[in-house]
Amino acid sequence: MKSFRGIVFDLYGTLYDVHSVAGICEQAFPGKGAAMSQLWRQKQLEYTWLRTLMDKYVNFETVTDDALRFTCAALGLMLEDDMARALGDLYLRLEPHPETAEALHRLKDAGIPLGIISNGSHKSIAQVVNNSSMGWAFDELISVEDVQVFKPHPKVYELAERRMGHGRDQILFVSGNGWDASAASLFGFPVCWTNRNLGPFDVLGATPTVVTEDLTAMADWVLE
Amino acid sequence: MKSFRGIVFDLYGTLYDVHSVAGICEQAFPGKGAAMSQLWRQKQLEYTWLRTLMDKYVNFETVTDDALRFTCAALGLMLEDDMARALGDLYLRLEPHPETAEALHRLKDAGIPLGIISNGSHKSIAQVVNNSSMGWAFDELISVEDVQVFKPHPKVYELAERRMGHGRDQILFVSGNGWDASAASLFGFPVCWTNRNLGPFDVLGATPTVVTEDLTAMADWVLE
Repeated sequence: MKSFRGIVFDLYGTLYDVHSVAGICEQAFPGKGAAMSQLWRQKQLEYTWLRTLMDKYVNFETVTDDALRFTCAALGLMLEDDMARALGDLYLRLEPHPETAEALHRLKDAGIPLGIISNGSHKSIAQVVNNSSMGWAFDELISVEDVQVFKPHPKVYELAERRMGHGRDQILFVSGNGWDASAASLFGFPVCWTNRNLGPFDVLGATPTVVTEDLTAMADWVLE
Repeated sequence: MKSFRGIVFDLYGTLYDVHSVAGICEQAFPGKGAAMSQLWRQKQLEYTWLRTLMDKYVNFETVTDDALRFTCAALGLMLEDDMARALGDLYLRLEPHPETAEALHRLKDAGIPLGIISNGSHKSIAQVVNNSSMGWAFDELISVEDVQVFKPHPKVYELAERRMGHGRDQILFVSGNGWDASAASLFGFPVCWTNRNLGPFDVLGATPTVVTEDLTAMADWVLE
């Protein structure tokens, strides 16, 4: 078994499936669900990066709503306020990936402290975790709200290190987002990149410690 | 005529057409030119944002090459080093939009100092301008290289203000990129967003001073 003193997970796209919203998007706008889910997620990320660079932080719910409004306008979809609220709420009820619970159970049983470090607000993280009945898994739920910048600003990774209570070299950082895995690695965490889509790693001058296809393989690697 | 003391233009996507590379991409990888040009540009921007957030600046040629490598890997295209160099060089020989030269002539004739503020390195900007024989138009060629961060970091807009030699409220900022127009506006420039694709404006808490379809309409607005 590897000797990590803790494991900290990204939430969106790592433990939880951001494209689990596509089905409801498809019901709301038939024929557009997949395109909408893709563009919404892309703009959501862009807006977190741009707002951090401009030093104009707003919380993740607001960014998500802004990205949704852009997406609907770009795709020519009429978005009523009720619908915007209903779609925004989807991000509070994301589904975990199918193997998430079992993988976390195995790590928890091995006595490893587990945490989440997320762009989500405290409220968003708590709701996503509670709505999926995953509260038992985590020792720390860490939000960028405490530092008022989004990933990959170094302040976010410093916050994770501080809250997990051990030096960065003793904490495994797990992310399904190549850019997040890159930044965490450059910061000094050992990193597992969960590469579900078998895509290339972002070319940002970093290499993850290990690459796995999902969280089951990640847990196997930690526990072997 | 508006009373601006100067006009500063974004280069990529404003004066010059970033998708003028699509034709050569199509020759290199038949059937993939448009998809490649789109993803290449998107990753190029992402990498400028991410590297600035991580405080890992490298110059624009390097980011462009990194983005090209990711793009080819993601699209399943085998990229030889010679081809990578040839494709990277395309960004040094971008074509101006068809109306760029005439619009700049009219503004120049009206006695307004003109500048470029670009993510490109000094070398890239000089080559793009020289290769298109546009050197006559500009009083200032300003590169982010001098501050070692990319747009939309406020240091870039400060640099533009300083080099143009007037307060930000007296300089018109022109960009075809909604996020760049947003950041310049939040910084305090009057802003013209050239919206060639008639798309929605980015939802980042800013509104441009004026929106035009191209540089001809921009010059009309300034000179009217």
